[in-house]
Amino acid sequence: MSDLADRVLAGELRALSRALSLLERNNPGAASAMERLDPHTGRAYVVGITGPPGVGKSTLLDRLTEHLRSLGLTVGILAVDPTSPFTGGALLGDRIRMQRHYLDAGVFIRSVATRGQSGGLPRIVKSMARVLDAAGKDVVLVETVGVGQTELGIMGVADSVVVTMTPESGDSIQTLKAGVMEIADLYVINKADRDGANQLAAAVTAMLQMADLSAGWNPPVLLTQAYANVGIAELWENVGAHRAYLRDRGELERRRAERRRQEFLETVQEELYRRIAGHLARDAGLINLLAEIDGKTAEPYAAAMGLLSEPIKLAELLDDTPAR
Amino acid sequence: MSDLADRVLAGELRALSRALSLLERNNPGAASAMERLDPHTGRAYVVGITGPPGVGKSTLLDRLTEHLRSLGLTVGILAVDPTSPFTGGALLGDRIRMQRHYLDAGVFIRSVATRGQSGGLPRIVKSMARVLDAAGKDVVLVETVGVGQTELGIMGVADSVVVTMTPESGDSIQTLKAGVMEIADLYVINKADRDGANQLAAAVTAMLQMADLSAGWNPPVLLTQAYANVGIAELWENVGAHRAYLRDRGELERRRAERRRQEFLETVQEELYRRIAGHLARDAGLINLLAEIDGKTAEPYAAAMGLLSEPIKLAELLDDTPAR
Repeated sequence: MSDLADRVLAGELRALSRALSLLERNNPGAASAMERLDPHTGRAYVVGITGPPGVGKSTLLDRLTEHLRSLGLTVGILAVDPTSPFTGGALLGDRIRMQRHYLDAGVFIRSVATRGQSGGLPRIVKSMARVLDAAGKDVVLVETVGVGQTELGIMGVADSVVVTMTPESGDSIQTLKAGVMEIADLYVINKADRDGANQLAAAVTAMLQMADLSAGWNPPVLLTQAYANVGIAELWENVGAHRAYLRDRGELERRRAERRRQEFLETVQEELYRRIAGHLARDAGLINLLAEIDGKTAEPYAAAMGLLSEPIKLAELLDDTPAR
Repeated sequence: MSDLADRVLAGELRALSRALSLLERNNPGAASAMERLDPHTGRAYVVGITGPPGVGKSTLLDRLTEHLRSLGLTVGILAVDPTSPFTGGALLGDRIRMQRHYLDAGVFIRSVATRGQSGGLPRIVKSMARVLDAAGKDVVLVETVGVGQTELGIMGVADSVVVTMTPESGDSIQTLKAGVMEIADLYVINKADRDGANQLAAAVTAMLQMADLSAGWNPPVLLTQAYANVGIAELWENVGAHRAYLRDRGELERRRAERRRQEFLETVQEELYRRIAGHLARDAGLINLLAEIDGKTAEPYAAAMGLLSEPIKLAELLDDTPAR
């Protein structure tokens, strides 16, 4: 797989796609490719763009990409899509609105489906961002849709987090209260030509003052009209200011080291679960235990704790290499 | 701990609080209490109420509780609050707006903080709902705030899921598209006296028709004005209709059995992670590995896969009973 990694490093788009797919499929080749790519990471700047549906994130992303290209920067985009628990597929798919950038070799776009019902940002986004970094993208944009807990995960992948809102979503301030405030490095009020934009900006600014962030970074509150390409250059300038702020304080290195540790831990956690889940259908003991849980002769919480107190059984479930 | 369980079954409020706290703290006593309570579960009906911030969920919950009490039903409420990654505490806390119900012994309210950045509905909510069930609550209401992935988790805990919207949040239809549609058993358009309520109802109905749910349950689209107590009785009647629908088809039993299995698996997963995380600070090998990951002499993904391929090391990390 070092072949594949070399081709990624050489900028081959098909190799890049393939490497991301190996990660998605948990292919054994992914680990060696990641090891080969890792020394070449650390150059890309990762920006998370998040906010509730309908605020115009996609248009913002589109315009920001255009702006970055005009500055001669290459761009990798990871669009994290909610997965339907029924179809298993990403609902929004490869986004049609970004289509024009597909023709540009300096832009690489990938949709990442969030799997299962666990919520949050999938661990794999961290690994994928590092692959795009190694592939030479100057900027990696990670787009997530969500309000609340989902958004918190973006802190774990991005160097700078942009939280987008619109004056028309009456729930913007409530959203801030629901925990978003503490993840935002920059606020963008998009559709700023609509009624209430200035009031919303004032309200966010007031909340930031109350929160007393005096010791640290003071998140700017920016007004954009992505559709009309207004405020995009200023947004990027402000991302640059945040980047400089982090770097000057050694905070950028600290965030990134923490992100690597988290990626390790989350991978261990996911893989442990995957192995146990893989045994569900074929381990007689587990099949029997699940039947007891169904039939209420075993209680779910106690059964879980019981399984975990049997080291031999546990080792059996975790030891073997899962079927692929 | 069977003492505690007996007191929960006898309806003692302090015992109930204590049992929920044991679960939260992963206290070893929780497992035996859960085993003792389990045979007494299955009577409560669990309703999930979800939607973005600002749609008036709290008022709806308050009015619905009032209505249920007027019908002579006892109510348990689990309010799942986003946790601040900085303070570690639940942001909304024990909700002041529900205060009047605190004086009513027939209503039990508990805030559940979502921990860490993982998003989604915490596994513990499933266990807690079963404790409230065993404690004799007729109805358990689970309130979550969110749009997108967070909301999907509520499918895993509730018998019926109510998705709330308002005409004023311009993003309602986008929210539906983002995957919420597939989890809703009932739609509530709250603040129905505001402009656009009927249009929104029509739009949701149109989307439901397009989705072709002809074979199964046809989710009603209800208009409420929770503040003015309008539409609350109808909401509960419709929940009843959904309950009857599920029960008549054996679907209620199926959903609940699946929920028990999931609770088991999620508990195993959480506990495995907790044990490994517990070793981070004291296992020399892990400390060294994390330092290598920091220093980029080890790659996070490959290091995780490597650890998992060492059964002896793995058993060491998982075998021991965690310090408490």
